[in-house]
Amino acid sequence: MKNSYDTGRLNLPFVGIATFAKKPYVADWATLDADVAVLGAPFDFGTQYRPGARFGPRAVREASTLFSFGHAGAYDHEDDTTYLGEDVRIVDMGDADIVHTDTETSHANIETGVRAALDAGALPVVIGGDHSVNIPCINAYDGSRHGALHVLQIDAHLDFVDERHGVRNGHGNCMRRAADQPFVTGITQVGIRNVSSTTREGYEDARKMGTDILSVRQQRALGAVETIARIPAGAKLYITIDIDAFCPSIAPGTGTPSHGGFLYYEVLEMLQEAAHRHEIIGIDLVEVAPDYDPTGSTAVLSAQLLLNLLGFVFHHRSND
Amino acid sequence: MKNSYDTGRLNLPFVGIATFAKKPYVADWATLDADVAVLGAPFDFGTQYRPGARFGPRAVREASTLFSFGHAGAYDHEDDTTYLGEDVRIVDMGDADIVHTDTETSHANIETGVRAALDAGALPVVIGGDHSVNIPCINAYDGSRHGALHVLQIDAHLDFVDERHGVRNGHGNCMRRAADQPFVTGITQVGIRNVSSTTREGYEDARKMGTDILSVRQQRALGAVETIARIPAGAKLYITIDIDAFCPSIAPGTGTPSHGGFLYYEVLEMLQEAAHRHEIIGIDLVEVAPDYDPTGSTAVLSAQLLLNLLGFVFHHRSND
Amino acid sequence: MKNSYDTGRLNLPFVGIATFAKKPYVADWATLDADVAVLGAPFDFGTQYRPGARFGPRAVREASTLFSFGHAGAYDHEDDTTYLGEDVRIVDMGDADIVHTDTETSHANIETGVRAALDAGALPVVIGGDHSVNIPCINAYDGSRHGALHVLQIDAHLDFVDERHGVRNGHGNCMRRAADQPFVTGITQVGIRNVSSTTREGYEDARKMGTDILSVRQQRALGAVETIARIPAGAKLYITIDIDAFCPSIAPGTGTPSHGGFLYYEVLEMLQEAAHRHEIIGIDLVEVAPDYDPTGSTAVLSAQLLLNLLGFVFHHRSND
Amino acid sequence: MKNSYDTGRLNLPFVGIATFAKKPYVADWATLDADVAVLGAPFDFGTQYRPGARFGPRAVREASTLFSFGHAGAYDHEDDTTYLGEDVRIVDMGDADIVHTDTETSHANIETGVRAALDAGALPVVIGGDHSVNIPCINAYDGSRHGALHVLQIDAHLDFVDERHGVRNGHGNCMRRAADQPFVTGITQVGIRNVSSTTREGYEDARKMGTDILSVRQQRALGAVETIARIPAGAKLYITIDIDAFCPSIAPGTGTPSHGGFLYYEVLEMLQEAAHRHEIIGIDLVEVAPDYDPTGSTAVLSAQLLLNLLGFVFHHRSND
Amino acid sequence: MKNSYDTGRLNLPFVGIATFAKKPYVADWATLDADVAVLGAPFDFGTQYRPGARFGPRAVREASTLFSFGHAGAYDHEDDTTYLGEDVRIVDMGDADIVHTDTETSHANIETGVRAALDAGALPVVIGGDHSVNIPCINAYDGSRHGALHVLQIDAHLDFVDERHGVRNGHGNCMRRAADQPFVTGITQVGIRNVSSTTREGYEDARKMGTDILSVRQQRALGAVETIARIPAGAKLYITIDIDAFCPSIAPGTGTPSHGGFLYYEVLEMLQEAAHRHEIIGIDLVEVAPDYDPTGSTAVLSAQLLLNLLGFVFHHRSND
Amino acid sequence: MKNSYDTGRLNLPFVGIATFAKKPYVADWATLDADVAVLGAPFDFGTQYRPGARFGPRAVREASTLFSFGHAGAYDHEDDTTYLGEDVRIVDMGDADIVHTDTETSHANIETGVRAALDAGALPVVIGGDHSVNIPCINAYDGSRHGALHVLQIDAHLDFVDERHGVRNGHGNCMRRAADQPFVTGITQVGIRNVSSTTREGYEDARKMGTDILSVRQQRALGAVETIARIPAGAKLYITIDIDAFCPSIAPGTGTPSHGGFLYYEVLEMLQEAAHRHEIIGIDLVEVAPDYDPTGSTAVLSAQLLLNLLGFVFHHRSND
Repeated sequence: MKNSYDTGRLNLPFVGIATFAKKPYVADWATLDADVAVLGAPFDFGTQYRPGARFGPRAVREASTLFSFGHAGAYDHEDDTTYLGEDVRIVDMGDADIVHTDTETSHANIETGVRAALDAGALPVVIGGDHSVNIPCINAYDGSRHGALHVLQIDAHLDFVDERHGVRNGHGNCMRRAADQPFVTGITQVGIRNVSSTTREGYEDARKMGTDILSVRQQRALGAVETIARIPAGAKLYITIDIDAFCPSIAPGTGTPSHGGFLYYEVLEMLQEAAHRHEIIGIDLVEVAPDYDPTGSTAVLSAQLLLNLLGFVFHHRSND
Repeated sequence: MKNSYDTGRLNLPFVGIATFAKKPYVADWATLDADVAVLGAPFDFGTQYRPGARFGPRAVREASTLFSFGHAGAYDHEDDTTYLGEDVRIVDMGDADIVHTDTETSHANIETGVRAALDAGALPVVIGGDHSVNIPCINAYDGSRHGALHVLQIDAHLDFVDERHGVRNGHGNCMRRAADQPFVTGITQVGIRNVSSTTREGYEDARKMGTDILSVRQQRALGAVETIARIPAGAKLYITIDIDAFCPSIAPGTGTPSHGGFLYYEVLEMLQEAAHRHEIIGIDLVEVAPDYDPTGSTAVLSAQLLLNLLGFVFHHRSND
Repeated sequence: MKNSYDTGRLNLPFVGIATFAKKPYVADWATLDADVAVLGAPFDFGTQYRPGARFGPRAVREASTLFSFGHAGAYDHEDDTTYLGEDVRIVDMGDADIVHTDTETSHANIETGVRAALDAGALPVVIGGDHSVNIPCINAYDGSRHGALHVLQIDAHLDFVDERHGVRNGHGNCMRRAADQPFVTGITQVGIRNVSSTTREGYEDARKMGTDILSVRQQRALGAVETIARIPAGAKLYITIDIDAFCPSIAPGTGTPSHGGFLYYEVLEMLQEAAHRHEIIGIDLVEVAPDYDPTGSTAVLSAQLLLNLLGFVFHHRSND
Repeated sequence: MKNSYDTGRLNLPFVGIATFAKKPYVADWATLDADVAVLGAPFDFGTQYRPGARFGPRAVREASTLFSFGHAGAYDHEDDTTYLGEDVRIVDMGDADIVHTDTETSHANIETGVRAALDAGALPVVIGGDHSVNIPCINAYDGSRHGALHVLQIDAHLDFVDERHGVRNGHGNCMRRAADQPFVTGITQVGIRNVSSTTREGYEDARKMGTDILSVRQQRALGAVETIARIPAGAKLYITIDIDAFCPSIAPGTGTPSHGGFLYYEVLEMLQEAAHRHEIIGIDLVEVAPDYDPTGSTAVLSAQLLLNLLGFVFHHRSND
Repeated sequence: MKNSYDTGRLNLPFVGIATFAKKPYVADWATLDADVAVLGAPFDFGTQYRPGARFGPRAVREASTLFSFGHAGAYDHEDDTTYLGEDVRIVDMGDADIVHTDTETSHANIETGVRAALDAGALPVVIGGDHSVNIPCINAYDGSRHGALHVLQIDAHLDFVDERHGVRNGHGNCMRRAADQPFVTGITQVGIRNVSSTTREGYEDARKMGTDILSVRQQRALGAVETIARIPAGAKLYITIDIDAFCPSIAPGTGTPSHGGFLYYEVLEMLQEAAHRHEIIGIDLVEVAPDYDPTGSTAVLSAQLLLNLLGFVFHHRSND
Repeated sequence: MKNSYDTGRLNLPFVGIATFAKKPYVADWATLDADVAVLGAPFDFGTQYRPGARFGPRAVREASTLFSFGHAGAYDHEDDTTYLGEDVRIVDMGDADIVHTDTETSHANIETGVRAALDAGALPVVIGGDHSVNIPCINAYDGSRHGALHVLQIDAHLDFVDERHGVRNGHGNCMRRAADQPFVTGITQVGIRNVSSTTREGYEDARKMGTDILSVRQQRALGAVETIARIPAGAKLYITIDIDAFCPSIAPGTGTPSHGGFLYYEVLEMLQEAAHRHEIIGIDLVEVAPDYDPTGSTAVLSAQLLLNLLGFVFHHRSND
């Protein structure tokens, strides 16, 4: 396997069009043919405090170029493994069409994109947008080839509000909407902490519906392996990462930051373990708000996480 | 008339709760009793590019404290006039209740606030929010004591799209919605420039409906007096100021900036002339997006404009 | 107990006037009737490096709105407790009057505010301003109903300079001034680290006067329970939190940052234990400088800490 | 002619991959078939003060999306003209390959890109990068079908240093290098002002070589029409725009800002007149440094200028 | 005269210690021997809104390096003149010693510095700090060899408050304090505008004391030559430039910005005319607050102005 | 030993010219006579992503003033030691002369500066610039009095690329270039993590050449003492600190950030142990990019580290 910079361009990170990981852009979703299909979902009318997750997809794409210049796969010396070699075909679908003032249509367009990825047999990776974009993402699995799925949510907030002032599809409702779906067989909610937008009743509902809620300190006491071991064996996993699960020290660029969050390896090791133990059938990463990320730390974290997670997923697949 | 700092607190600008101009906050709108009632409308799901006008009201309030410390009115040496003495009673109504994901309810709540101000006999001053908040503001005049009104729009964009992808109440539709109202007898649109979100058809519709469209260079050639003279004599004026009417050099903190805009005195002098020639029955100032205003220039401009405009309005009234 | 959003406004965090936790503003301190009285002390002429703590009160108030929308108390799932229900009456006193160029008068005005809170039987919570505002805060307890008190200082710096170039009331002198007060029976100084503005002589004086000095690493080795156990049993506690006690990773927005500081749970757990073991009779949180806090992390941390600390204090009281 | 949003996506500015004006990306330059070919030249080792023009291409592309959503051409009401209809085919070539530490190779790669555009019969539009990228741009015209050309430079600095400490290809040398080329028949240098990196000798050389130097105040006295009239009739024009020609009020995001620069319409009108009077055979716009452009004003200005200039060029061509 | 870069270092702007214009630093003021002595006065307890002018001297020094690399004087093609050749000896005195919490001592230390410059026969150039530093600057001329002087103030604010809440030496009092000095024979106040911190009484006092007050619009109507002609012929001039005299578009980095200010050439041409008509015996430039100047525009403006003004002063002297 | 503020100036951090630690600037390197000689190396053409390390030296110098005001040494209460008393003579050499577009000459000028420090018998401390400046730093030890040396690299990246697209002296090549030197007897590489710019072949080369590679997690498992114990006893150490070795939470201001890095005490304790066990003969700290460091956290970290490391080095020497 040769590195592309041996024969062609040096292609430094700051050079070139900022698609995700500098992978090809496929505008016509009917022609999708890939292992991974990355979709931007720049919708943020569902957020309750600081705006701007609409620019999350562009920021994460830009940051992903730091990790994407001309490698014939990415070598990790701790694992002594080269991840994401040329056999893993990643494409960038661009963004779902968002319609200002209109939540329903915007969500529908996101669902359309995820269904296109699923129909093509690709692993959908959605970059938000606020956490409400998870609602159409999950909806897209209704009737998919995957059948039932379990949601692994990494987040500061429970997002289990049923309805408030008529709102059922905001960023605080997404896990409740997932729980409404018959094909969602369980939810593991990790990182939940601090006084929250979900009231006591929401927690009671979540427990009643059987979700597994762990705070950061509770997860820390368990460690990555034991945390992931709580997910039913054999479950197909949909992973939703709200970047505010992380400590604001590394993820300040988000709408509703909450101190006391995860550090990098804590989440990385959960993801590595999850990819090792389960089939990963969908991923979203949400709530990156670049206007509050002047150093780029949050976007770099998001790109670094997604690329490592994809590496783990396909390394595991190739080893099966 | 004594200055308040002679007897009480020095009350420097950086000291104290940031209501508009440090005026009293009236939470119970049923008890409103004032000449001017300032309402925040922190709604921004109607914007088509950069987000964040939801924080416009807080930013303009904060900036207004710079001009509001302990004066027994504000003396202007060029006019040799003291404006906004203690006889002008200004109150801050706080903000209209905004509901995430829900444009209709949010707009309705803004309309409720403006109607409360009108019912109390106060001059409504609404701080946006994106320009779509002008729609419920204008709607609130339906059936008001003022009867017919003429709109003076100061803006970079025509905002005359009728409908696009089902959207009729976004920030690019507001003047078209105003034109739909039978009690709106005319619109003067000043500052309109550059290739715009409104297509040729929108312009044709606007002209057909009788609006008067002037670019920055066209207004400059006319001057303030002649520009205002184009408004029908005797018309009651509703003034809507989109801060992107100004040059990005002084108003960068906005969602859809457009170069070639107005400088400070150009607008100030139009407003002074308008207040001199017409009864001003409503004001909104919209599209201040503080996340793109790191120096505070845009918020300071907005506060300075509003306070001067209010000074002109009440100076004129007291001279009648 | 009903949530206010069931009956009234949704009141999202970004909506409304930014008083502390959106609690009522009481301008006339003679009428104070509350359990907690929050006072801003926007004084920063006492700082020795980066300026701007004068905007600390406004920034912390703004950030506090994130945690303050329509809850009937705030539910914490780790403690399975709802904190700060409607029975805890919090008010915002606004700010002490600050006079530019004049340290003495400004400090006197802060003392007046704290005395007003104490006279009303409320728990004073002062938001700085630089750490010198602690001097008038402590002075206000001279002759109060509380009698003697112990100071728990959470800080990077010892602040134990007696006098230098004539300065006795700067932000590096505050703990020395506290130690001068006969009613201050002891000081516990936690987080002190790195080469500091206090010289060896200052440390020797502090030890001679009997203060208990712990670095971050020393506190870490002890843990929260043992650290708090070093405070004499039964002591009434005044807690002063210099935000630079924290690691710059989460509290960069401060005048004299120092690496190697506390992480979130380390301080939270000390505060929870302190509230459990001691009567808390006063609180200040100082040195938030928003101009160095572009992500808002420092202000959010401050608001989150204060609200949790107040929750602990009143939960403990209600359980007594 | 129909607007694309009538049939397809709404395609708001913040949605989608950020190519220039959201136009197709053509990675294989051998297949170029377009009227306009936009090339990024993210090279900035030639700058003498603030760095970061390497991110100029990405920033200008991002800003160009503001003006590029779904129009069937862009209607300008002042000119009553629809510019850049579907008949003008614009493509984005991506970026020239830049090699860190190596000026020579990087410049050669830029030249390769411009030659590819010229060979395809397209109008090359190069986005820098620092002004040294103009050197390979001009070199690419050596032997082109266009034959001789005249350079219109809009800039604060003369850039006429021959050699200093061995440097011949930095951003202060570019016009001298252009003057060295036999096919460059003249240079008009507009906007030159203030004490500069070019010494008196440089000015003397420039005059000796016959360039026409105008300061901002001198250009202002002449106006757009007379300024452009100084260019020899019939000359084919290469236009190089250093964004620091503009006033820092609207173009702060640049490496070596200089106060007293042009305002928007001054340059726009020169460009409109130049496109009216001359065939435009090449364009570069350089020195946009996004790290000094927190509001995006400079990038928006650059995108707005380029799109208007392209509109003028092709409107003129279609009218011939 | 040779350029230093012919023989020594290239000395690019970003290279080297940031003294003013990279001129020698003279720590021992007893040894001063120079034509110009630049003193920093990093005092900002006199400001009434945004803090941070204490970092003005460092920011202006840093910006001055842009204009200071290796020239054998600075050539201006509009004037066809080389300014500030090697015959003009400029030194940097460093900063006056500032004592936190103590206005009186800090001001005294500034006065000591200016007296040292005057005693050495140098032209003092003081970089603030807030405008209150002008008070000790003027005081230093009491008993100087210059005798009487006239003050040319370029400012947005009148700064003519006598006393308020005991404050006599804040940034709003400086021109009143100057007027108190018997050796100050007159004050010309240019740029004064908008509702201001000085009340009507202050204006009346100023007029009574004979100051000449011109707004921006009034100065614009006169032009530079007529404006300067209002200063008594033969008067020795002390020039005080409050950077907020300028439009916030180019000078946002200041504590109390005011829209409607001067553009660059308006002030430059007044300074050039003043240097031509009068002996300049002292200069201060104040109120640069870098925390509100993210693009560096304000600092660059300040450095550019000071260097040009010094060029005019010494060019005029050499021509006498 | 007296503190300088007892007799002279208070000299607060924000006061005065920003040399490193406010130590004397020695422009004439032939006259160097010091224990420590600090050299800026503002070169950044070797970086592959975000630019701006050229302003690293100025930023670190500015930050160092926070720790440098008038101490007679710096007292650390944890160690009960006063570091860097007056017996340790530190000087600031200013910066190496950098030539834009020319890597070779710029590197040569850095080597000249380090050789000057070595010839004067001083400990060279170089502040970058990007990591490529380490290449001339190491080269300067060729033929020095120190003979052989071991490199301790603290970094996120292996920097072991031999050659790519002709580049041999970029910031990803430095450790490979060090390994090429016969007088470099070994390299310990700590902090190396994540998918990197160095491919598997680079790692294999490094291991073949005998370097010791430890990731952050591997170092954490060992602790500071065991990590340093892996360095051969008696080796003279050259320490190169790439600030991206640290977690972006405290060091966001760098060109190629990588999550999962070191926290403060982890590196501090390695440095303290290294200074205890080995003779330190050279230090560089690189990759501080202030444009991505809006809070100053990275620059403060760098200054705090360097000053503590110097304290350890000279405390150890004085104890021998």
